Amino acid sequence: MKQSKLFTKTRREAPSDEVAKNAQLLVRAGYIHKEMAGVYDFLPLGFRTLNKITQIIREEMNAIGGQELVMTALQDKELWSRTDRWDDDKVDNWFKTSFKSGGETGLAITHEEPLTRIMTEHISSYRDLPVYAYQFQNKFRNELRAKSGIMRGKEFLMKDLYSFSKDETEHKAFFEKARAAYMKIFERLGIGSQTYVTFASGGIFSEFSEEFQTVSDAGEDTIYVDDDKKIAVNKEVCTDETLTKLGLKKEKLAEKRAIEVGNIFNLGTRFSEPLGLLYTDETGARKPVVMGSYGIGPTRLMGAIVEVLADEKGLVWPESVAPFKYHLVSLGKSDDEISKTADAIYDDFAKAGIEVLYDDRDLRAGEKFADSDLIGIPKRIVVGKDAVATGVFEVIDRATGKTEKTSRAELFV
Amino acid sequence: MKQSKLFTKTRREAPSDEVAKNAQLLVRAGYIHKEMAGVYDFLPLGFRTLNKITQIIREEMNAIGGQELVMTALQDKELWSRTDRWDDDKVDNWFKTSFKSGGETGLAITHEEPLTRIMTEHISSYRDLPVYAYQFQNKFRNELRAKSGIMRGKEFLMKDLYSFSKDETEHKAFFEKARAAYMKIFERLGIGSQTYVTFASGGIFSEFSEEFQTVSDAGEDTIYVDDDKKIAVNKEVCTDETLTKLGLKKEKLAEKRAIEVGNIFNLGTRFSEPLGLLYTDETGARKPVVMGSYGIGPTRLMGAIVEVLADEKGLVWPESVAPFKYHLVSLGKSDDEISKTADAIYDDFAKAGIEVLYDDRDLRAGEKFADSDLIGIPKRIVVGKDAVATGVFEVIDRATGKTEKTSRAELFV
Repeated sequence: MKQSKLFTKTRREAPSDEVAKNAQLLVRAGYIHKEMAGVYDFLPLGFRTLNKITQIIREEMNAIGGQELVMTALQDKELWSRTDRWDDDKVDNWFKTSFKSGGETGLAITHEEPLTRIMTEHISSYRDLPVYAYQFQNKFRNELRAKSGIMRGKEFLMKDLYSFSKDETEHKAFFEKARAAYMKIFERLGIGSQTYVTFASGGIFSEFSEEFQTVSDAGEDTIYVDDDKKIAVNKEVCTDETLTKLGLKKEKLAEKRAIEVGNIFNLGTRFSEPLGLLYTDETGARKPVVMGSYGIGPTRLMGAIVEVLADEKGLVWPESVAPFKYHLVSLGKSDDEISKTADAIYDDFAKAGIEVLYDDRDLRAGEKFADSDLIGIPKRIVVGKDAVATGVFEVIDRATGKTEKTSRAELFV
Repeated sequence: MKQSKLFTKTRREAPSDEVAKNAQLLVRAGYIHKEMAGVYDFLPLGFRTLNKITQIIREEMNAIGGQELVMTALQDKELWSRTDRWDDDKVDNWFKTSFKSGGETGLAITHEEPLTRIMTEHISSYRDLPVYAYQFQNKFRNELRAKSGIMRGKEFLMKDLYSFSKDETEHKAFFEKARAAYMKIFERLGIGSQTYVTFASGGIFSEFSEEFQTVSDAGEDTIYVDDDKKIAVNKEVCTDETLTKLGLKKEKLAEKRAIEVGNIFNLGTRFSEPLGLLYTDETGARKPVVMGSYGIGPTRLMGAIVEVLADEKGLVWPESVAPFKYHLVSLGKSDDEISKTADAIYDDFAKAGIEVLYDDRDLRAGEKFADSDLIGIPKRIVVGKDAVATGVFEVIDRATGKTEKTSRAELFV
């Protein structure tokens, strides 16, 4: 798209109320807008990047058999009372409100309860299992503090998959598959080498849950990393006993700050029992379904990618999630030979179906380059006097700063 | 996908608490699930159809220059107070709740206020105009009654585009374009011939607003249709004076019930003035931006398509929004020649990238056909003994009931 048409403008200074690097850069580059503390809009550039993240997650969830649906924000008090997760004493971050037609409701903090209830209408026999269902949906959490930019919002996008299995064996086989799918997602998002499967407090029906932690000073967690085994232990469970169980040696562990970018839980029958999600097995016996949950936050991931990859000049996106693949920067004035060449290259990109942001604005080169660095598109193509004269174009890699020289035809290869 | 893997099951009877035809059929066919009155989940089949509807709308909004973004559900009380739309006396369908960190918030009923505020950071000169921005976002409306299924929800998906123009002339030119884009959307959704541009009460800064009304007995509105001119007038404004103004003759109008499937409004400077969205014109003068809003509800549209096109046997989808293009129904038992043929056809469809639901379940033919009618996929291909013996396949059109005979190779043309 033409940058002269993009409605967002960059700004030199970060807003004074943003302390997190991700929010500072994303606001400055025009990717997001803050409504209130912990509540962010995603503007066109941010929306494009967020969509690329969700699409990668979607592909990997589909690949392991996930069926996509979408549930609601408004939640049924009666349903959550049955699992004892409605009272503020039990769950302290609900937003609650009431219907004008009578009765209380709350904004979804997560979706185990409604999906389990849906499944009671569709699962009755072992023949109906296993089932894997997922959604991308906003979660609402009434957090007291919000100081990590888009990494910890009061309203944020979440991919949550839930597995429904006959027994522990079937459940575990899927749990392993989901773990591998998650690591593939982080690889594709460009933060694979910084991200570790991390043992954390288990919560329900298992000793440990598994988190995915991306090493970054901006993280809220402390983890102990074994780099040879590519696994880590969250500080909260890092006792001698745990290390022995996991076969880890204290002296091989390095302490790191990290961002929790995903988690997978064994839920056992915590929800299927109180909500009556039972099935008839091969012998005719009625049994509760064994469940797991698998969360990953696209908005938090977007923030984590910024924290890990951005530099002092601005954002740095991996090609997989960049809003555009190329940033075509024209140094021409309206209607001169340079502008005409840049226009023609832009048209050729459009015809080839390659995503390009075309800086066709009438600004000084220095301003354009500063904007381009801030916005962080992987490859910048500069169209100036020399390029028009020689037919040799400079393509600058945003991450490394390296320049390649290429002919016009080679741009579209 | 294989129907044996699809987690939803159909049901013979509609739930007793659903009175609207759209909700009865969509629940029976496994497209949606009701959480509470006016609050519906979209299950895999419903999610696919909803996505196709949103994609058609997106393409038409992009074609008229729309830039997609996504704003939040949680709203800033202070902002809405500035336009005098926060008090329950002024707007009576807010869901309101509070932050644990202090202060009230509400769930977005619409998004004029937040988007206008965002634009104050990006629009300052006539050079920045016009701008067209849109989103697909859930709206929340605390309705007293909810009896129209997914056509009137307390939480529902909405596409809302807002236009920002220099003056009335620039605004009107876009308004016309948006009207044409809307009619194209209804055409593509298969309800074009039943849908009329309808003059309704204008509200803000213009005598009339324009609604798009789809004729159906399930509608909540009464309109008067001039079928030659393809326009209509909402009963609420259908006076002699209005008819004279619009050049319509009373005796040529037919009274119809209709569903409001979209609306477009002139907003004038109703929001730009109180929120300070001003620009500097060519002469250096500061002027308020002229705005318009353009709404269309994908969930309501999905309900409207059901109301208009479904028949006594179940849903009937136009190909453009059907969850799958083909329903491949095998009449074989596991591993017999019929099943093997059906499996091979399914694989060929997958390779060709054609969307197909494959009923590979071990059920009686009658049950499969009843399910197929209920689910409403446009074309059904039956693989039975005859087809395997002769190589001639029956393809049944769901809407017309007509059967075509075709060879296997021709299925993929």
